Amino acid sequence: MSYRFYNARILTMEEGRDIFEGELHTDGSRITYVGGKTDRRPEKGFDEEIDCGGNLLMPGFKNAHTHSAMTLLRSRADDLPLDKWLNEQIFPVEAKMTGDDICQLTKLAFLEYLTSGITACFDMYLTPKTIAKAARECGFRMVQVGAVNNFSQSPELVEEMFNELNGKDPFNSYILGFHAEYTCSKELLLKIADLSHKYSAPVYTHISETASETEGCRERYGMSPVAFLDSIGMFDHGGGGYHLVHVDDNDMEILKKRGMYAVTNPGSNAKLASGIAPVSSYLAHGIPVAIGTDGPASNNALDMFREMYMVTVLAKLKDNDASSVPAHEVLKMATVNGAKAMGLQDADVLAEEKLADLIMIDLNTPNMQPVNNIQKNLVYSGSKSNVRLTMIGGVIKYRDGSFNIGTSPEDIYAAAYEIKKRIDKELNA
Amino acid sequence: MSYRFYNARILTMEEGRDIFEGELHTDGSRITYVGGKTDRRPEKGFDEEIDCGGNLLMPGFKNAHTHSAMTLLRSRADDLPLDKWLNEQIFPVEAKMTGDDICQLTKLAFLEYLTSGITACFDMYLTPKTIAKAARECGFRMVQVGAVNNFSQSPELVEEMFNELNGKDPFNSYILGFHAEYTCSKELLLKIADLSHKYSAPVYTHISETASETEGCRERYGMSPVAFLDSIGMFDHGGGGYHLVHVDDNDMEILKKRGMYAVTNPGSNAKLASGIAPVSSYLAHGIPVAIGTDGPASNNALDMFREMYMVTVLAKLKDNDASSVPAHEVLKMATVNGAKAMGLQDADVLAEEKLADLIMIDLNTPNMQPVNNIQKNLVYSGSKSNVRLTMIGGVIKYRDGSFNIGTSPEDIYAAAYEIKKRIDKELNA
Repeated sequence: MSYRFYNARILTMEEGRDIFEGELHTDGSRITYVGGKTDRRPEKGFDEEIDCGGNLLMPGFKNAHTHSAMTLLRSRADDLPLDKWLNEQIFPVEAKMTGDDICQLTKLAFLEYLTSGITACFDMYLTPKTIAKAARECGFRMVQVGAVNNFSQSPELVEEMFNELNGKDPFNSYILGFHAEYTCSKELLLKIADLSHKYSAPVYTHISETASETEGCRERYGMSPVAFLDSIGMFDHGGGGYHLVHVDDNDMEILKKRGMYAVTNPGSNAKLASGIAPVSSYLAHGIPVAIGTDGPASNNALDMFREMYMVTVLAKLKDNDASSVPAHEVLKMATVNGAKAMGLQDADVLAEEKLADLIMIDLNTPNMQPVNNIQKNLVYSGSKSNVRLTMIGGVIKYRDGSFNIGTSPEDIYAAAYEIKKRIDKELNA
Repeated sequence: MSYRFYNARILTMEEGRDIFEGELHTDGSRITYVGGKTDRRPEKGFDEEIDCGGNLLMPGFKNAHTHSAMTLLRSRADDLPLDKWLNEQIFPVEAKMTGDDICQLTKLAFLEYLTSGITACFDMYLTPKTIAKAARECGFRMVQVGAVNNFSQSPELVEEMFNELNGKDPFNSYILGFHAEYTCSKELLLKIADLSHKYSAPVYTHISETASETEGCRERYGMSPVAFLDSIGMFDHGGGGYHLVHVDDNDMEILKKRGMYAVTNPGSNAKLASGIAPVSSYLAHGIPVAIGTDGPASNNALDMFREMYMVTVLAKLKDNDASSVPAHEVLKMATVNGAKAMGLQDADVLAEEKLADLIMIDLNTPNMQPVNNIQKNLVYSGSKSNVRLTMIGGVIKYRDGSFNIGTSPEDIYAAAYEIKKRIDKELNA
């Protein structure tokens, strides 16, 4: 399919380029033109020409940390202390989830991502094969990361998935990783570092989400999690950390030196009372920050608008400075930096030959009027209700409230309900 | 008009009453039935019967602090230190706004309120007569509060509006108030306290929004703002404070003793780096908390879902406790407590003879599925995109994205744009 989007405002997210009025063309999975009004036409014409009515085109958001299939656990356990939440509510349910369950529940997350303009996610969860199946069936751009720990998965599975899920289909890729320092033995961690060296590949993991986890690592190894993992060669080929709330200056220096990404999850960190990540310090150190929703058990929404808002207002509170982390920086985190962290170098900005992973934002709504500053609007008053269209790889997956992912929302809701019913029954047996 | 909403889940917000399945009837401006499925019918039948499809009916949200007409200033000045924001951006524009401008810009806010399920607002702004006109013309429930300070309005105007706007039409009411301690002379404050005594009426004002304002009061009067204002008899008939971020134990005792409301504005307080209000302490002291968006210059959205989420996650961060301020408390703040603070005793819960100020929440959306817990969903994953219908005084004002306020959104957007253009020109002249 080929599309012409015209009469648009366009925010390409290329460095230093302001919003301009013009049009954008796609052919197959790629963007073929971005610029002012033009007479350029493919010989066969376009399959569809879309009048944007002055609305905004921009790159799709990249959800740089999530556990998609935890949709099952949304609002199942909230307003609880962290240990009760995890041990009494989350773990017992997860133990009952099958690979097929996870495939279905991941599709439920895709629906929510599309409504929020998210075109790709960086997912850590239990059954990589069935998650990849969900992505292929729905046409959603999925980057998985190894989730190995002492209790599930293995370095062998991580290596197998690394080879099986990269370069095989347009919707799936896989990055080396493990769950967290505190859930992995040193032997296990060394095996992951070996894989990183074998493939010259970056490694991602949860790091320093909570104060107690960070303190625990200092007791175990006499170093912070960042410093300890770096000391065993884990980040020789870069990578990044999810959360990174409790870090010190030495950690900052290591992250900078290794070219690592800090993936911040402000909603989850707030709701679970984990703390506020030092986002403006990351920026000051030149450490690129990306944004993740974390999973729906701990957030509970998968909404990049809420996360963008949270990133900046929490930074302002933490720094006691209303000018901290301005809107444009936040938009860069949610698009360009997310894409780079996830290895999606072709989905970072809107430009010729890049992947057509893009969204259309409605500016003709009460929360966007009058239009004083579109970038500030996106971060401070924007909402997923402004997402008119979400396109992945040149295919319109969501438009004016309707989905195009090969199965109906009603069927996905019904499947999630059946899974919930079955697991509740098993737990009560 | 009379309506029957059937096949609904209903959250009445009456104390101790769980969500149940049933129906709700309205006739004119009032609710005539709330309960299980019934054969009760008015003799003339209903004007419309609405199949809720299992979706949720609940009381409309009460926005307990705002400056509606500041829509003009949305995203005009952000990511700036507070003093620059106020003195270089906000004040010069406000000086150019006419009463007619404010009427139009208030209507723009009404549109946004309706999309977010807000059925009433507690508004402090410059021209009470034209704000009341906007409410009458649109059928929006408006509670105004006196905004007098050393630079605008007068105690005489406050008294005049108190008499003119109460009891005259179903959409307007007026509560005594002033801008803030730091913008009013002691003489002026004493005149407002006199009015309170004359009419045995409560008084509302901005209190202790910032640390510097609170410190300034201590320097001026040797007391905190709450203590000083109470010492001159301001709260002898109750009332409340907007913001109340920087308070001490003695302030808490005064608020409690005077039966006052703490109106929290978490989004604004975060964005302007003012701090986090001690919401769980208010609850522990038995001080009722209501929620306001504050104005769109400082938020920038007028979205009760975002505010509800912010109230609880900021409390969790402040208290370092993931169980702080649970979802049901937040819903009570956004509905029952807001109504009581605003003097809308008839719009607090869904019950027979109460005002039909209600909303329908779509549960058949990705962010609400699977339905594990509706109240947690509302606060943690809910969004204004879930608002299917907003009714005020028995009239459907918003439904499936369409508005019914006597004028089209396009005309309101165009009017706001013309005001912006004119004022920009005047400022550049």
